[in-house]
Amino acid sequence: MSNQKKDLRILRINTSQETTSEEPVPTDLLLLGGRAFTSHWVSSHVDPGSEPLSKRNQLVIAPGLLAGIPASSVHRLSVGAKSPLTNGIKESNSGGNVAYKLARLGIKAIILEDSPKKNELIILRIGPGGVSFEPAAEILEKGTEETAAAIHARYGPNIAFMVIGPAGEYRLSTAAILNSDRDGFPARICGRGGMGAIMASKGIKAIIIDDSETKAVSLSDETRFRKSSRRYHQYLKETPQTSETYTKYGTAAMVDVTNELGGLPTRNFSCGHFEGAEKINGRTIYQRILERGGDPSHACMPGCLIRSSNIYVDQRGHPIVRSLEYETLVMFGPNCGIDDLDELAQINRLCNDIGVDSIDTGGAIGIAMEAGLISFGDIAGVKRLLEEIQQNTLLGRVLGQGGAITGKILGARRIPAVKGQIMAAYEPRAIKGHGVTFATSPMGADHTAGFTIREGLNSHKKEGQVEASARMQVNGMIYDSLGLCLFAHAAIRDHHDLLAELVNCRWGSELTSRDLRVMAIEALEEEKEFNQKARLGPSSDRLPEIFYEEANPSSGTVFDIPPCELDEIKYV
Amino acid sequence: MSNQKKDLRILRINTSQETTSEEPVPTDLLLLGGRAFTSHWVSSHVDPGSEPLSKRNQLVIAPGLLAGIPASSVHRLSVGAKSPLTNGIKESNSGGNVAYKLARLGIKAIILEDSPKKNELIILRIGPGGVSFEPAAEILEKGTEETAAAIHARYGPNIAFMVIGPAGEYRLSTAAILNSDRDGFPARICGRGGMGAIMASKGIKAIIIDDSETKAVSLSDETRFRKSSRRYHQYLKETPQTSETYTKYGTAAMVDVTNELGGLPTRNFSCGHFEGAEKINGRTIYQRILERGGDPSHACMPGCLIRSSNIYVDQRGHPIVRSLEYETLVMFGPNCGIDDLDELAQINRLCNDIGVDSIDTGGAIGIAMEAGLISFGDIAGVKRLLEEIQQNTLLGRVLGQGGAITGKILGARRIPAVKGQIMAAYEPRAIKGHGVTFATSPMGADHTAGFTIREGLNSHKKEGQVEASARMQVNGMIYDSLGLCLFAHAAIRDHHDLLAELVNCRWGSELTSRDLRVMAIEALEEEKEFNQKARLGPSSDRLPEIFYEEANPSSGTVFDIPPCELDEIKYV
Repeated sequence: MSNQKKDLRILRINTSQETTSEEPVPTDLLLLGGRAFTSHWVSSHVDPGSEPLSKRNQLVIAPGLLAGIPASSVHRLSVGAKSPLTNGIKESNSGGNVAYKLARLGIKAIILEDSPKKNELIILRIGPGGVSFEPAAEILEKGTEETAAAIHARYGPNIAFMVIGPAGEYRLSTAAILNSDRDGFPARICGRGGMGAIMASKGIKAIIIDDSETKAVSLSDETRFRKSSRRYHQYLKETPQTSETYTKYGTAAMVDVTNELGGLPTRNFSCGHFEGAEKINGRTIYQRILERGGDPSHACMPGCLIRSSNIYVDQRGHPIVRSLEYETLVMFGPNCGIDDLDELAQINRLCNDIGVDSIDTGGAIGIAMEAGLISFGDIAGVKRLLEEIQQNTLLGRVLGQGGAITGKILGARRIPAVKGQIMAAYEPRAIKGHGVTFATSPMGADHTAGFTIREGLNSHKKEGQVEASARMQVNGMIYDSLGLCLFAHAAIRDHHDLLAELVNCRWGSELTSRDLRVMAIEALEEEKEFNQKARLGPSSDRLPEIFYEEANPSSGTVFDIPPCELDEIKYV
Repeated sequence: MSNQKKDLRILRINTSQETTSEEPVPTDLLLLGGRAFTSHWVSSHVDPGSEPLSKRNQLVIAPGLLAGIPASSVHRLSVGAKSPLTNGIKESNSGGNVAYKLARLGIKAIILEDSPKKNELIILRIGPGGVSFEPAAEILEKGTEETAAAIHARYGPNIAFMVIGPAGEYRLSTAAILNSDRDGFPARICGRGGMGAIMASKGIKAIIIDDSETKAVSLSDETRFRKSSRRYHQYLKETPQTSETYTKYGTAAMVDVTNELGGLPTRNFSCGHFEGAEKINGRTIYQRILERGGDPSHACMPGCLIRSSNIYVDQRGHPIVRSLEYETLVMFGPNCGIDDLDELAQINRLCNDIGVDSIDTGGAIGIAMEAGLISFGDIAGVKRLLEEIQQNTLLGRVLGQGGAITGKILGARRIPAVKGQIMAAYEPRAIKGHGVTFATSPMGADHTAGFTIREGLNSHKKEGQVEASARMQVNGMIYDSLGLCLFAHAAIRDHHDLLAELVNCRWGSELTSRDLRVMAIEALEEEKEFNQKARLGPSSDRLPEIFYEEANPSSGTVFDIPPCELDEIKYV
């Protein structure tokens, strides 16, 4: 057993007492990382009947199993809890440098337990001297940009951080946690499911991770690792998506794909084809950024070869937003009838600064547009609504509690939500595999939970979609647990043996790719069991009825996979 | 078999086609009435995953099994559906004259199916000439008072009706159905669970029941009936509660009882003793009404001997509200810090005119007070908030979607709700049997679903409360199914054989009191099964955590019945 493995520990932080205990990692948890860890921990330690913002919930922060190793695209961070949005188990993950530094510190997971006695939020600092609880007065109710700047001023440029914005402090169910990217900006977002509200309920405005006195993570077998990682990197370089498409166009490469299928959510999911798609697609973003001297191919994590992120800049070359991504682009773009990239970048920046999930918020505003609160395409109106959230007005609180509640309050007819959470930017009647994922994933309607669109099926037909979703839900769990970016899938989809080998080189284990699948299936089933016990809501594993009944005019299709088939989904 | 039984029919109304079919009653449904009928029908015909306001839900209207017979307190009406408030199965019942007339018409139940194609609501008229669909233009968005007056102007004084107010038309989850009382006023209310929103979703503003060409219901054995009903009426007359307490003081007799136990919900359930209780108790109401020339002992149903209802009048003797009842009195009184009877009567009248459930609305406003929107005791503020509901503003829509959502939107700490529905006016830490009922009844936190306070236990102690609740939940189901007023319980608690005998005299059956219990238990279990399948929500069979953790200062007790004991409740 390597020293690293021996020193590995779980940091349990009691937020009521402001005390910390460091525990060795039980053997059965050693090979669970990221989402597999957070979901197992939540399932084991949180009563499914708990109120999400109460002391009985826990916030679990865990780097993926591969985080910290010298390899590309493996340093993703998982945050898990019982969600105030879905009322079920939730994991939300992001890139950035937090997981990387936690791994170097030998931290398997941070667990925030109980509730603080005081109302005022604090800063939690984790570093070579242990854990300290520090005042946060000067950053309270500040946006994430200002918060990050103040943190760097106090703690220097090299730390990593996790912060919440005003939305989190207001305990809104769509509040995100923003994590530092490789450059120290609050740009990588655990957006879905209200993890920011839970962090606030634990009394924490920011977590600082200082790895300044640590060294590289140890490997169980360096020689084998060098060989394997070389092979892995070779696959990334040889695969067009990971070496060119995503690198140039990032996640926005998907705009043309979904638009062509009639699967680009447009005007509150009323159709799937947007007339202004070309103005906001990957190619346009790439050219715009190049012309203006921004960075179209930015790595969000240390050592990433794919570099699908970008720095979107204004006409003077000043960054507007650090990574304009597909989901935000579509939920505020076509879904709100907006095709102006610069404005979308400004809207994205505002969402990040407030600290809300841009998927749920874009969805909520699309619903508000359909309900007649503002018109589709009304950019100033969108900004005004975001400011309502920022200012914690009644309307802001309605929107900030998510699109499903917004729709109920406004009496909207079409509410594109599952498990209380707005669907990610894939129209489920035209891209049926994603529809299956939205309906059946224990995570709710997430974009990465079971990504079928690239799986070679006719997305308008129902044949094979349940199986494809099940397969990709398992793959998604594997990636989320290793800390691997979903984008690597294109390169390693047939090489999961290599993923097992990387784990083995790191931890001295003897896993096979089959073992990874078994781990993933067990974790998914554990999540499903939690949700069953939590009694998520009336239509937990269903799309809204309207998607069964009204055809998407762009594809001419309804979602026609019967509930009984959804209920019989099998992870294999 | 009597003619009456042979002619008995179920009226199925397709609201999309505007067509009616009359079906004979299947043998296995002949002896199910009221709630047992509505819950069985909903369980058999509505997919538990349905969206409550969609065409897949059905609104089921059924008189109790004894409705129409010449006896006291037996003409209650049940309305059932999947609730937009609890997202589970719901039955809401009331007195008045609707069930009486339906029984005379030989109507076992009215079923409203599908959804209308048009947006505009209509009037459904049921009478000797069959069913007709009539325009409602002049009463749309009108309050229930004006609606009722217009109905009488059009259809004469002798019809019965069921109407919704603006709240129903706005599809609010707390919208009620108001039924005509014996005198033709819209005064008897199916308040709980949003049945009014479902009626609107079926395109119906009002249902008119015209029994002008019918005669008395037939009895299977008139001689036996006369004997039994005499015995039954004798019990009512001999029992102090049914012959004096309820007759004089009505439901408000309960104010002193709960206040003394520290169980009178005060200032958003923050304590259980109200300093102004004497100003609003049964005795004060009685004296006030007598002094002013109102009617303190009014029968809401034809032939009622108990006459617990009242007509509360102003100083000039003009009616303010037809029956100021305990639940409304407390939820807007102590729960909102208000002790002015005349103002409470005005508030009650406004709730009825808008057509909202006064329990959930009083709860929502209590929560809004705690959240700081207005102050406790602010009468003008309460009226302003009710006007927001009336005018369908954003705040009005938030309040009108119920206290649970209001609390979530406003970020309130104490949300006294179960299954998304505000608790009725019994503080569950001080009156623990009601707490058990609130947690475990498939109906959610209803006042009549399992009424334990009179069952002779120490209400502060947990011993025996689960059993008492179970017993009273079964009794509640029996009464709700026969159409019997819960107030008769005091008189016939030990004479359920007599209830069975009344059923037998009416229907020619051979039921025993044991058969009634079996029927009730089966119906409760059917409701529970529906809710299980509907996956009601995270804490479906739980009180909010705060009731377990913070003592009620008036009783010094927390709710300490552990979840496992709640889960093991057995109906016997």
